[in-house]
Formats: sequence, structure tokens, C-alpha cells
Amino acid sequence: MTDERVENLEWARIDHDRAKRRGFPEVIYGPGKTTPQIRELFVRLAERNPNVLCTRTDEAAHAAVREALPAEARDALHFHADCGLLALRRDVRVRWRGTVLIVSAGTSDQKVGHEAIRCAEVMGNKVERISDVGVAGLHRLLAEVPTLERASVIICVAGFEAALPSVVAGLVHCPVIAVPTSTGYGASFHGVTALLSCLSSCAAGVTTVNIDNGFGAAYAATLMNRIGGEVTDS
Amino acid sequence: MTDERVENLEWARIDHDRAKRRGFPEVIYGPGKTTPQIRELFVRLAERNPNVLCTRTDEAAHAAVREALPAEARDALHFHADCGLLALRRDVRVRWRGTVLIVSAGTSDQKVGHEAIRCAEVMGNKVERISDVGVAGLHRLLAEVPTLERASVIICVAGFEAALPSVVAGLVHCPVIAVPTSTGYGASFHGVTALLSCLSSCAAGVTTVNIDNGFGAAYAATLMNRIGGEVTDS
Amino acid sequence: MTDERVENLEWARIDHDRAKRRGFPEVIYGPGKTTPQIRELFVRLAERNPNVLCTRTDEAAHAAVREALPAEARDALHFHADCGLLALRRDVRVRWRGTVLIVSAGTSDQKVGHEAIRCAEVMGNKVERISDVGVAGLHRLLAEVPTLERASVIICVAGFEAALPSVVAGLVHCPVIAVPTSTGYGASFHGVTALLSCLSSCAAGVTTVNIDNGFGAAYAATLMNRIGGEVTDS
Amino acid sequence: MTDERVENLEWARIDHDRAKRRGFPEVIYGPGKTTPQIRELFVRLAERNPNVLCTRTDEAAHAAVREALPAEARDALHFHADCGLLALRRDVRVRWRGTVLIVSAGTSDQKVGHEAIRCAEVMGNKVERISDVGVAGLHRLLAEVPTLERASVIICVAGFEAALPSVVAGLVHCPVIAVPTSTGYGASFHGVTALLSCLSSCAAGVTTVNIDNGFGAAYAATLMNRIGGEVTDS
Amino acid sequence: MTDERVENLEWARIDHDRAKRRGFPEVIYGPGKTTPQIRELFVRLAERNPNVLCTRTDEAAHAAVREALPAEARDALHFHADCGLLALRRDVRVRWRGTVLIVSAGTSDQKVGHEAIRCAEVMGNKVERISDVGVAGLHRLLAEVPTLERASVIICVAGFEAALPSVVAGLVHCPVIAVPTSTGYGASFHGVTALLSCLSSCAAGVTTVNIDNGFGAAYAATLMNRIGGEVTDS
Amino acid sequence: MTDERVENLEWARIDHDRAKRRGFPEVIYGPGKTTPQIRELFVRLAERNPNVLCTRTDEAAHAAVREALPAEARDALHFHADCGLLALRRDVRVRWRGTVLIVSAGTSDQKVGHEAIRCAEVMGNKVERISDVGVAGLHRLLAEVPTLERASVIICVAGFEAALPSVVAGLVHCPVIAVPTSTGYGASFHGVTALLSCLSSCAAGVTTVNIDNGFGAAYAATLMNRIGGEVTDS
Amino acid sequence: MTDERVENLEWARIDHDRAKRRGFPEVIYGPGKTTPQIRELFVRLAERNPNVLCTRTDEAAHAAVREALPAEARDALHFHADCGLLALRRDVRVRWRGTVLIVSAGTSDQKVGHEAIRCAEVMGNKVERISDVGVAGLHRLLAEVPTLERASVIICVAGFEAALPSVVAGLVHCPVIAVPTSTGYGASFHGVTALLSCLSSCAAGVTTVNIDNGFGAAYAATLMNRIGGEVTDS
Amino acid sequence: MTDERVENLEWARIDHDRAKRRGFPEVIYGPGKTTPQIRELFVRLAERNPNVLCTRTDEAAHAAVREALPAEARDALHFHADCGLLALRRDVRVRWRGTVLIVSAGTSDQKVGHEAIRCAEVMGNKVERISDVGVAGLHRLLAEVPTLERASVIICVAGFEAALPSVVAGLVHCPVIAVPTSTGYGASFHGVTALLSCLSSCAAGVTTVNIDNGFGAAYAATLMNRIGGEVTDS
Repeated sequence: MTDERVENLEWARIDHDRAKRRGFPEVIYGPGKTTPQIRELFVRLAERNPNVLCTRTDEAAHAAVREALPAEARDALHFHADCGLLALRRDVRVRWRGTVLIVSAGTSDQKVGHEAIRCAEVMGNKVERISDVGVAGLHRLLAEVPTLERASVIICVAGFEAALPSVVAGLVHCPVIAVPTSTGYGASFHGVTALLSCLSSCAAGVTTVNIDNGFGAAYAATLMNRIGGEVTDS
Repeated sequence: MTDERVENLEWARIDHDRAKRRGFPEVIYGPGKTTPQIRELFVRLAERNPNVLCTRTDEAAHAAVREALPAEARDALHFHADCGLLALRRDVRVRWRGTVLIVSAGTSDQKVGHEAIRCAEVMGNKVERISDVGVAGLHRLLAEVPTLERASVIICVAGFEAALPSVVAGLVHCPVIAVPTSTGYGASFHGVTALLSCLSSCAAGVTTVNIDNGFGAAYAATLMNRIGGEVTDS
Repeated sequence: MTDERVENLEWARIDHDRAKRRGFPEVIYGPGKTTPQIRELFVRLAERNPNVLCTRTDEAAHAAVREALPAEARDALHFHADCGLLALRRDVRVRWRGTVLIVSAGTSDQKVGHEAIRCAEVMGNKVERISDVGVAGLHRLLAEVPTLERASVIICVAGFEAALPSVVAGLVHCPVIAVPTSTGYGASFHGVTALLSCLSSCAAGVTTVNIDNGFGAAYAATLMNRIGGEVTDS
Repeated sequence: MTDERVENLEWARIDHDRAKRRGFPEVIYGPGKTTPQIRELFVRLAERNPNVLCTRTDEAAHAAVREALPAEARDALHFHADCGLLALRRDVRVRWRGTVLIVSAGTSDQKVGHEAIRCAEVMGNKVERISDVGVAGLHRLLAEVPTLERASVIICVAGFEAALPSVVAGLVHCPVIAVPTSTGYGASFHGVTALLSCLSSCAAGVTTVNIDNGFGAAYAATLMNRIGGEVTDS
Repeated sequence: MTDERVENLEWARIDHDRAKRRGFPEVIYGPGKTTPQIRELFVRLAERNPNVLCTRTDEAAHAAVREALPAEARDALHFHADCGLLALRRDVRVRWRGTVLIVSAGTSDQKVGHEAIRCAEVMGNKVERISDVGVAGLHRLLAEVPTLERASVIICVAGFEAALPSVVAGLVHCPVIAVPTSTGYGASFHGVTALLSCLSSCAAGVTTVNIDNGFGAAYAATLMNRIGGEVTDS
Repeated sequence: MTDERVENLEWARIDHDRAKRRGFPEVIYGPGKTTPQIRELFVRLAERNPNVLCTRTDEAAHAAVREALPAEARDALHFHADCGLLALRRDVRVRWRGTVLIVSAGTSDQKVGHEAIRCAEVMGNKVERISDVGVAGLHRLLAEVPTLERASVIICVAGFEAALPSVVAGLVHCPVIAVPTSTGYGASFHGVTALLSCLSSCAAGVTTVNIDNGFGAAYAATLMNRIGGEVTDS
Repeated sequence: MTDERVENLEWARIDHDRAKRRGFPEVIYGPGKTTPQIRELFVRLAERNPNVLCTRTDEAAHAAVREALPAEARDALHFHADCGLLALRRDVRVRWRGTVLIVSAGTSDQKVGHEAIRCAEVMGNKVERISDVGVAGLHRLLAEVPTLERASVIICVAGFEAALPSVVAGLVHCPVIAVPTSTGYGASFHGVTALLSCLSSCAAGVTTVNIDNGFGAAYAATLMNRIGGEVTDS
Repeated sequence: MTDERVENLEWARIDHDRAKRRGFPEVIYGPGKTTPQIRELFVRLAERNPNVLCTRTDEAAHAAVREALPAEARDALHFHADCGLLALRRDVRVRWRGTVLIVSAGTSDQKVGHEAIRCAEVMGNKVERISDVGVAGLHRLLAEVPTLERASVIICVAGFEAALPSVVAGLVHCPVIAVPTSTGYGASFHGVTALLSCLSSCAAGVTTVNIDNGFGAAYAATLMNRIGGEVTDS
């Protein structure tokens, strides 16, 4: 196969066209891949792209990638142990005009919120965050309405019954991406209740991603934020 | 069997001891019973108790019971068609000191809210209500905080993602009974999402009853309200 | 309560502030409301807003609203029987710069697609559509790549296994909102399989709304499209 | 933000108003928080409240909190290893007039029962308990009817098919809070069967909390018990 | 095919050997069969067996079978409209020594209980019944302990949370067959909760049949009762 | 779009290339389509293909199609009311060398079996069938082993616990396609139990299609049968 | 409490009346109990009963019980490590006339089969077994029909799709108790598919116990076998 | 039992007739069996068959089998650690004319794909593979259409939303066996979403096997491939 858009490693086919087609290069999904596989994919993507991401991986993959990268790239490589994100961020410019705001309901959801924040930054967004504003103490959220109102896109991270996305969406006119988390126990069913709650939100305009999918929320937020245009075209 | 506490009709055994044991006579559950069966159970309970309830029944049962009751009781018989509640209410006194407040999220939940209100009244409670205060327009609820604060027990009726019980419980120090409703579609799963949401509430102190169970919430609220003592002992 | 933002009808509280807060007035959810209730809510909203929507309602509500509206508004009232949407559209201007594209997988999903199209139009979007491009005949979709590429936001409507959102999202760099539909039988579980499929999409950037929720997708698409600015500010 | 009711630690916002609003300070939910985070939250809550709780935590958090607390508070700090409850109890007075009774079905449910007992005590209740009275040996329960009858609120802890709450509720006129437990295997589905059983109880007046949620049951019981007034106002 | 044990009608193969192999002839399952098919199967079975059963059928099938049966058989044909059972009972002798006792929790479960009773009688059992002894009024059941103790096999019919089988099994030393019923709503999930509850029973020795399967319980009870030997061999 | 392979009707895009690509023209899925839509799709497909299928449709669609077809095609049009299959079969030749055998467990599954038989015939297969050989009377099946052994592909249709596919697959060396049916009640969950049973079969080589999907089984069987070559190439 | 039937240890109430009421003493359920608790319960039961069982326990409990038992009892104590059963069997007589036959589908189900065999023996049954006769090789089972026919009660242990109980029940006229096992993966859902399959069996007379509940099956089989009378009364 | 077709080891009955009846000897399912059991079964099967498989086993079983096999067989024994497959392959001939093609969606699915490849080879198929052609980068798959078109049978391995089988089946006229994998998280539910997606495929002709069941897919593919005849009969 001589298609330049695809690099065929037999066991994998790297879709180098993706950065052009979708605005960001292929992101490596860590689970089920061996450390050498992650290393090879990461390095090859890094040869052609300034920023590269691998989600849900571990310290061993981090070490292998670090060793394999050219020396000048290593300073830009960060492993976020709490959410398993391995990020190469050589291009640190804010690219899109709007702000992506990550709002999380509780401190127990922080791991998912961090993944969303880090990914959104690597993808060129200006990022803000509001943490620990669960609905059981509503005044904490209401004090932040000005911050909510100036965001272009809001990512709302919540576990348990995930009431927060409905409340937030009711207060703003920007898109709200709900990220249900697996925080909770018993009838929370590892995030299923939060997921169904987000999908059933009485506040129109909420869209939802998979449980604990901070990365996917950041990716979608970037695509939305991009509608508002680049910083450089102002 | 000569146990005075039980009236054995072969196909049914009326538990006449229940009013004494539990504070309110046996309540007839309509589904699966024939109209003559409902009539007979209702009449026999009405012979010994001023107030009698049959839930989830229909106009035919209402007509049959009406005809079978003694003339003087008929004025006190009401059929609430929207929720299928047949209620005989000869004793209209408010018996318990506290107030039971029914808060409902949307107008589509009204049928369940009505069942809760009517049952709570028949069981001797002073009842108040706040309707259509879903969380997508939070200021509607916040304007009612004084009403929330003076209740002894709050019944919170909500469908879809049922965020309301968490928000309400976060504002008050009385018990909140969540009644998830089957309002919604798709991922609402006929009330299952609302139910799981209530059970997973991040606001401690919420307890939950079955989907659409306005009657059960009113019954539980009455038992709680009763802890505060009777009006007549003040 | 004298809050001007809320009109309190006892059984309902109209959130008149919503148009300001969220960009579009409160939308009436039909199920569980009586025809007179829908009529009253619709008329009161129409007094203050040019465009009004009621979802999942019926011909009876349409007739009642039509009769109650002022004569000059009636021509702008349309009832879309296939999806139960009652729409008052007096302001027909395209307001947002970008285009919302509705792509649907099969002709059996048309009812949900229609709801999305009509709502997106009423909310001020320029709307395009591509129908019947299920993945079992991929060339139908691939022939439309130029249309896909010029959209600002894509709403992707699909039932059964809902493979279409993943395929579409892999081709574009705009946000893709997946609307799983209840089309299918057996293991499709009334849209649950399609829903889970959308949520598990291997193509990053897909966000999902509730099963058959064409309205919600249009609402979210409008919020996203709005990020690109108004037509009149060009 | 200068709101005195909230202490903003960036990663967390302590809702110091909660003790006033809800009757007990914010309770720390352990899972997903780091040991330093638990220590900091616990210590700050302990600065303003005599009694503090952290649920589902571990010995490491206990040690960290113990070290960080002022010396005079340490004696009042207890870690209940069986249920992971870390409790600071400096105010040991019984505050509410009624008694909260914890009834558990089997010795395998003891962990959840202990959490309920400890929390109820810390929240100012007089607490009694009856253990191992599963319905397969009914006479064990029937022998305790006098104890059941003198309770203000009953917390009923049961796993497997959770028949006990229905049986208990049928015997008394106080509220019964059912706590389904994850005790069981196979078709018990980690407590789901017990949960559904409690929600479907044929005995009116039962309300239910999440699986294994002994803390939540105690919190709700306290709110109910409080309706009966304080010991000091007698 | 010349196998005498099977009558091949092309669209059906009647297993005439079954009476010998299993103790009772093949029973016709009504749903999905046309009236002429039921008629033909019933008549052919009636040619070789004194007693024949068709479950879950309707009045039309009854009429067709009645007309097709020889005149002398018609008096022995009964259609039980409440449970859809069509029964030919020409041999009315009690065949097995022990007694099958059907205990049902509520009057709403009567339809399933009736199916069990009628089938058990047709299969040659002495049958007793106790109705409406749900656990919310335990004394009703406890008054019947002597009846419970003299049964050889107990069929226990219960919906909602189905606590009755556990309570009954705890009182006796005969096998208890639990029949969960679809009585209930919401979290009863059309009998699923009752089913799971029976399967999770804390009282050893309970075995369970499918939801609403009164026939299957009677069949199993007959096989068990048969272990005790025939009346005629005493 | 000038792609000859696709006929674009705006609301639908007929994939005329499918017959070439997949061996049989596009099959119309009836549900969700209007009668005029079915008529138009059917007629256009009939213009280019001798045999056309529409599944899960009704008598009204049949009448509309019949009227719209050219006179000479009408004799070849059949509506199978029991399974809702509308079939145009102008080419009645057996095309593939092997035999497709449909085995069904009970007479209640006949509707699904019929769909499989009719579709398999229209797609050019020689078809045989064995009906009503459920495993509760095993000798009925064992008597047919020679028929089983001479099949090229077996479609095995079964509801309830669907034990038949495992038993059949254990007897033969041809592929077995399991079609779980929705026959059953209670714990059969409208075919889900049968589906899971087929998927979990202990007999290797069973593959499964959706619940009640007789058409899909016939389609897959045709693709498999085709591996053995055409009749005409012998 | 001075009820002689109950020994109250505060944390547990031993139901010493159970042996009389139910035919076998209380059986200890291991999970959730500490080793000292198991030791104490076991020893106290052993003081009054010759045979004692504790299910799902471990080697540590075995060692503790062994040490605590009187020397003369230790030889009769066996720990079956494969199924976690701790059994004291001092009375080894066969008590009931009939035979309990355990049939298991695969060697992977042996652990559950062993629990059933050991428990049935300890409860006084004559026990036979047939192993590894899954339906994918039917002749293995058919060769054992004589053994099947002489059993009084059959326990049928099967995982995956659990087709075996239906096949076995179709061959015999004794009761068949199905024990679904958690053997399998994927769509076997840890035994749920096997469970649903057993409950949906097309062969009447099958009753079912919980997943992997070999003990419960043995207990129920004993109650059934007992109907046939004791060996000593022959 | 003297049936030559079965070797009775008491705890297992080896079905030696299976190779004749089904075309391949009994395959050992590893889980739940002890290492000595696997060794004995493997060795006995190897005495009569050139090729033997044991799935889902471990290195310990490998070592035990290796030691027990005759020296000349050891070179033909391979343990594939990534998928736990232990394979003896002494007969390496390609037996069937057609080609089995394994297509996998992502590198994370490789373990399941490997099992399918290895098993298909051992069963005498010519095998080809295409890896990492998920639908989010469609051109990777489209470049391989010629490979797809020359296959006799395609096994399509995919996790997450498993859109690949629908896309592949839409491109070819050979049977497609879908193998859903457990790759994914959250709403992927360990492969359930992929499974349901495959079963609901809009592309007719897809049949499905259990989650992660690479072996079963290979077995079924072999049975299909065999329809095309043996290499040696060409």
C-alpha cells in the first residue's frame, strides 16, 4: 500500500491524514497495547506532529517513550499519573479564540477533570476551571455565574446522580458537554446512573460523552471552540 | 380462624389490625383486582374506618363503591381521575403538627404529585405544594426557599434526570422523600434513570420510594410528620 | 412572588427569563400535559417571543393553540405530524453564520431527522440535510464529503447499530452530535444499542443526546453554531 | 470570592454553611481523594465543628488526620476499620428526643449496620440495635416487637432478598429506612436485588437509600428524629 | 418417520411418549399458535389421554376445542378465563398421597395462583390454598402454620418484593416452590424484582420458576408430590 | 450526484450497486416507512431486479405495491401475512448447490421460521425444514439426524431457553445459524434469554443473528451456501 | 430474651429451633463474617447437632474451627477447598430412601457440583453423580438414561447456555433442580444467561436456584427426597 | 460404559466421536479446570488427533502438557501467551480451498484477533489478516477492498461501538462473522455494546459470536470454508 496518508506497520496503520482531516493527529488509546507498541506509535506520530497524546497509559509507557524521543522533545513530554495521560506538548500556543471551562462537581471527580483540562490545553484552547461545586451546596456554583457566562464551551464533570450539568446548562447560552464519572457506589453503577442522568437532562443543549471520558469531552470542546475562529485571525 | 384482627373472605384477608399497628388502615392496591373485589374490600374497610384509600383504580370501581357505600358516606368519596385514586375522607381534621410540602419539577409530573397531595391530606397532614420548579430555571426554586424551610417533611417529585431532590435537600434540614417519576423517554427508561439518580443523590438525607409512588411517599411522610406529635397535644 | 422573570400559574411557572439566559424561550414538552395546559403555556410564550416550540404533542393541542393564538400568528404556526412538533415561526431569519447539517442513516429514521431540521430552522440556523446514507452502502456517504466538510455542526441520526456517527466524525473537523434512534428491533432495544454505540464511538469528538431527541440535538447544534457569530455581525 | 460560607481551596470548596443549613457539617466522601486532601478537608472542618465524619476511607487517612489534628482532639477521633468510617466526636451529647433503632438481618451485614450506628451516634441520636433477625427464623424478630415499637425511626439493614424491611414495617408505626446491602452472590447482583426489593416493598412507609449506604440512612434518620424535637427543649 | 411415539403433523410433532416418560402428556403452550392449531393439538392429545391442558390461550380456542371434542368429553372441559387455562379433566381422582398447598401473598396475584391450583388438580394432586397473607400483616400467615405444616409441597405465589417465600420456607420442612408474579409497578419491573428476590432467598430450600408460571410450579409440585407415592399404593 | 450506482430520491438513496456488490439487491425494511415510500422503493428495485423483498410490512403496503407493479409481475408477488414479508419472486431457480435447512423448536416459533424459509427461497436456495423438535422431546430431533447431516447450512430457530442450537450443532459439521425468537414470557425477556443462550452456546461453530431475524439468517445462510458454488457450474 | 430456641450472642442470634422446624440446623454463610465469628457459630451449632455446615469459607476458618472443636469431632470435619465448604459430618447414615443424582455439564462446573454432592451427603441422602455430559455430545448423556431414571431427585449443574436441565428434564419423571453456574465469559454474564435459560426452560418441572448455589440445590433436594420417607421406616 | 466414542475418566468424558461428527476434535476450555486435568485431557486427545487446542489457559498448563506429550510432539506445541491459546499443530496442511480473512479494528483488539488466526490455521484454513482499520480512518479499509473481495469468509474483530462489521459486510458478498471485543470502557460495558451493535447491524449477512470469542469465530469460519470443498478435491 503506497497511500501516503497511512503508515502501515502491519500490526497498526497510523492515520497520518487525520491531523489534516480532523484538526488533531490520531490519539493513542493505551489499554490493550504493549509498551513497545505505544512507544513506536508515539514516536512516529511525534515525527510529524508537534503535539501527541496517549490516554489511559502508565509510567512504563512514559519511560519508554521518553527514552525513544529525541532529546529536544523530552522537556515537552508530561505524564499525568492521576489520569494516565501521556502528553507531548511542543506547541503551547493558544489557538482558538474562545475559552473552554471545566466545571467539576466534587473533588472525587478530579482525575477526569484533569484529563479534560490537559487535553484541552494540548489541543490549543484557553482553559479555565471551577472545582467542587456540587449541587448540594448551590451557592458555591451561583457565585461563579460570571465565569460560566464568559465561557465558549463548558465541560461539566459529575458523578453520582450528575445533577450539575442540568443546573449549569440552565444558566448559560453556550454548549455544555456532560462527562459522567464513575464516582459513586451501589446504584451509581460505576457511572451508568450519571450517564443516564446527563442524557435525560431537562436542560436542553446538553450533549454527553462516555463515562470518565475527559479526553473525548476536550476533543469535542475543541471542535466547538474552533467554530469561533482562531486567535490569529482576529 | 377467629382472630378478630383479620376478616377472612377466603380470597382476601382484611388486616383490620393495621390501623392500630401502623396508624392507617390497609390501603387497597387496585391493579389485578376485579371491580366487585374492590367494592367489597372498600366497603368493609369503610365500616370500621373513617378514611379509606384505593390506589390505581378506575371509574368503574368508583361507581361500584359509590353505590355500595351508605348514603351518608358518598359525599366524602372522591375519585381523582388523573392519578386513579379513590378516596373516602370523612375525617378531614389536620392531625399532625408539621406541614408536608410537595415540590414537583415539571407540569408533566403533576399526576404523581396529585396522588401524594391527596393521600397526605386524607392521612391527616397539613399540605402545601410548589409546582414546576425544575432545575433548568433555578431562580423559580430559589424564590421559594422560605416555603421549603418551614416544611416538616418534603416530598420531591421529579422525572427525567431527577436533579431536583438533590438541590432541594441541599437547602433544608428536614427529611426529603424523593419520588422519581416515569416522565421522560429514551434513556429515562420509564423512570429508572430518575430512580437511580435519587438513590445516588449527593445530598445526604434523601430517601427514595418506588417510581410514580406518590401514595407511598405520602404514607412515609405521614409517619415522619407524626414524630412531631399531634395538633391536639399542643 | 413578584419576580418578573417567572409567570406563576400555580400549576406551572413560565421561565420568561430563559430566552435571555439561554438564547431561546422555554420549549414545551408535550407528554403528561393536558391540551388546555399546552394551549395556555403556548399562548403565553407567544405573547413575548416570536418563535415558540412544543415537542411530542398531537393534533388536538395544535387545534387548541391555533384557535387561541391571535389571527396574525396563525399562518406562522405549523404542526409536523410525523414527529409531533408544534412550531410557531414568525421570525424566519437565518441568524447564525454557520450551517447545521442533518445526516440520517435510513428512511426509517426520518421522523427524528425531521424534528431536528424543523427545530434547527426555528432557532435561526441555515439547515442542510443528507438522507439515507447508512454505512451498508458507503459510497452514498462518500459522495457527499464536500457537503459534510462545509458544515459548521453535523447532527447525525441513526438507529440499529448507529455506525454512521463514527464514520462521519472520522471525515470532518466540525462537531458531530449523534442522535441515536429507536429504529430497530430485538437487540436494538428501542434505541439503547444505538445510544451505547454513539457513546462508545471510536471517533473522538462525537457527543450524544437522548434516544430520538431530534429537538435536543438541534438545540445543542444552535448553541454550537452560535459560537461562530451572527449573520448580522459580518 | 469572599463568600464567608465557602472556603475555596481551589481544588475544593468547603461548604461551611452546611452545618447551619442542614444541621450537620459537610461529610467527606473518601474515595477518589488523596490522603493529603482528606487530611486538609478534615482539619478545616474540625476547626469549626465539634463532630466531623469521613466515610469509606482507610487507615492511612486516619493516621494523617490524627497527626494533623490538635492534640486535644485526638482522643475524640475514631477509625472504624470494618466500615472505613473516620469519626471525630467531641460533642457526645444525645441531642434528639427519639431513638434510632438499627435492625440488621444477618451477621454478614454488620459492616453496614456499624456505619449506620456510628454515624447516628455522632449526629446526636440515642441509638439501639437488634442484630441477626433474618426472616428465615421469624421468632427472633417477633421476640423484639417491644423494642421495635419504642423506636422513633428504624433503620433496617438487609442483603440477599431483603425481606426484612417489609416485615418490620408491617409491625410498627414509625418510619422505616431500608438499607439494602451487597451481601449475597449470583442473582443478588451486589445488592441490586435487595435494593429493588426494598423499593417494591408491599409495606407502605418504607423509604430506601443506596446500597450499603449506612451513613445516608443515619443522616436521614437524624433529620426525621429531629422532627420530634431536642432533648433540651423538654 | 414411523416412530410411534411421535405424531408428525408437519407443522408440529406431538410427543405422545411424554405421558409415559414424564408422567403427564405434553401441555400446549397457547401463544403464537393459531386457533386451528390449538384445536388440532388438543383433540389429538385428548384421543390418547384423559386429561389435557393448554395454557395462556383464549375463549376462541376454547370454543374451537369444545366443538371439536367428542360430546362426552365436553362436560370435562373448562376454560379458566382469569388465567387463560383450558383444561380437560376427565380423570378427577386424587392420585398422589401428599397435599400441594398454594399460598399467595395478595389478591392481585390470584390469577397466577388459580393457574397453579387448577393445574395441580388436573395432575392428580390434593390441593389446598391460603390467600392474601402478605408479610405486611404477618399474623395472617402465622395463624395458618398448621396448614403449612401438613403440606407435602408448598407453592408460594408473590409479586412486588416477594418476601413471602422466604418467610414461609423458614417455617416448614417441605419444599417451597416460589412463583414470582408480575404484580407491581416501577422498580418491580414486571416481576423481575420478585424473581430475583426468590432466587436470593435467605431461606434455604426455596426453588423458583419463571415469572407468573403457575403451571410450571404445579408441574414441579406434582413431580415432587409423586415421590411420596400414589394414594392407591397405600 | 451522477453516480449510477445510487438513485437519489432525496428522502432515500437506492443502492442499486448492492446486487452486484453483495449478491442480492437492497432489501426494504418496512417499519418507519410510509406506504407510499415502500411502494416507490419496491417498484424501483423491481425495475432492475427480478426478486425483491420488503420485511416487516403490512397488507396496505402489499396492496399499494401490487397496484403499482406492472401486470406481469403481480403473479410473482406474495405477501406472507404471518411474518409480514412482501416478496416478489420472478426468478424461481435454485441457484446454489447446497441445501439450507430450517429447524425450529416449537410451533410458536413458526412465524420466524417462515420468514427464514421464504427469504432463503427467494435468494435462490434449495430449502428444507424440520419443525417442532424442541429438546424436551429429544427423540423427535434424533429421528431427523440424516436430514441434518445432508444440509449445507442449518438455520436453527428457537425461543425460551433456546437449547436447540447447541444440540443441533453438536450433531453436524455444517455451520449453524441460531435465530433466537421472542417466544416466551417472564424471564425470557422477549427473546433476550434465547439470544444470550445462543451466544453462550457450548457447541462451537454456532453464530447468531438478532432476535426474530429470520430474514438475516436466510441472508447469511445464502452467503454461506454460495461458497459451495452455483448449480449451473457443476 | 429467654427464648430457648434462640441463642443470643448480641452480634448473632443462633436459631437452634431450625433443626426441628426445617429438618437441618442453621447453615453458616461464610462471606462477611470474621474467622472468630465463624468459629463461634460453628462450635455452638456443633454442641447441639451432629452435622454442621459452613459455606463459602476458607482455610483460616477451617483451622480455627478445627482447633476449637472437641478432639473427638475433628476427624469428622472436612474442608473442601475447591468449593469452600466446611463440613462436620458425625452422622454418616443415609437417612432418606431415594437417591439424589447430581448431573453436571462440564468439568469447569465441578466446583459447584462438588458443593452439591457434599451437602447432599451431609444431609443424609444417598448420592450419585454423572459428570461432563454437556449437550454438545449428546450420546454421553443418552448412555446414562438408566441412571437418570432411577433417581428420586436430579440436580443439574450447568453454565454457559445451560441447555442441560431442559434436556434432562425431558427424559425423566422426577423433579429436576437446575443450578446455573458462572462458568463462561462475555454474554454468559457470570451465570446470568445460564440462570435465565433455566428459568425459561421449555421442559416443565424444572425449578431453579441461584447461580453457583450447589448448597441450596442440595438442601431443596433433601426436602424433596424426604417426601419419599426415611430408610428406617421401610 | 463401553461406548467407544466416549472415554470416561469419571470427572470427564472425552467425546472422541466429535472429530468425526463435527470435523475437529473436542477443544478444551481452560477456565475452571486444574492443570492436571488439562494435561490429561490434552494428552488423551493428542493420542488420537494430530491437532489439539486448549483455549484460555496459562503457562503452567503449557508446561505440564509439554512434559506429558511424547518428545516428537513437543515441537508442534505452541503457547500463545497473549490470548492463552495452547495449540498442538502436527498437521500443518491447508485443507480447505477458500481463505479466511481476519480484519481487526484496532491494535487493542489484537489478542482476540490472534486467537482467531491461530485457531483458523490449526483447523486447516489458509488465513490472511488486515489489522487496525477502524472506521474513524475509513481510507485505511477502503485501500484493502481487493483483499476483502477475495476472501471466502471474513472474521471481523472490533470493540467499542463495533461499526466495522457493518462497513465490511456492506462491501463484500462473503459471510462476515463479527467478533465483538471487550475493548473499551464505560458505556462499552466490557463488550456488550459491541455485541449488541453487531447483532443490530444494518448490513444483512453478519452473524455474531460471543464477546472476545476468537476461537468460536475461527471454528464457525472453518465450517463455512469447508462448504467450498477441500484443496485436495480440486
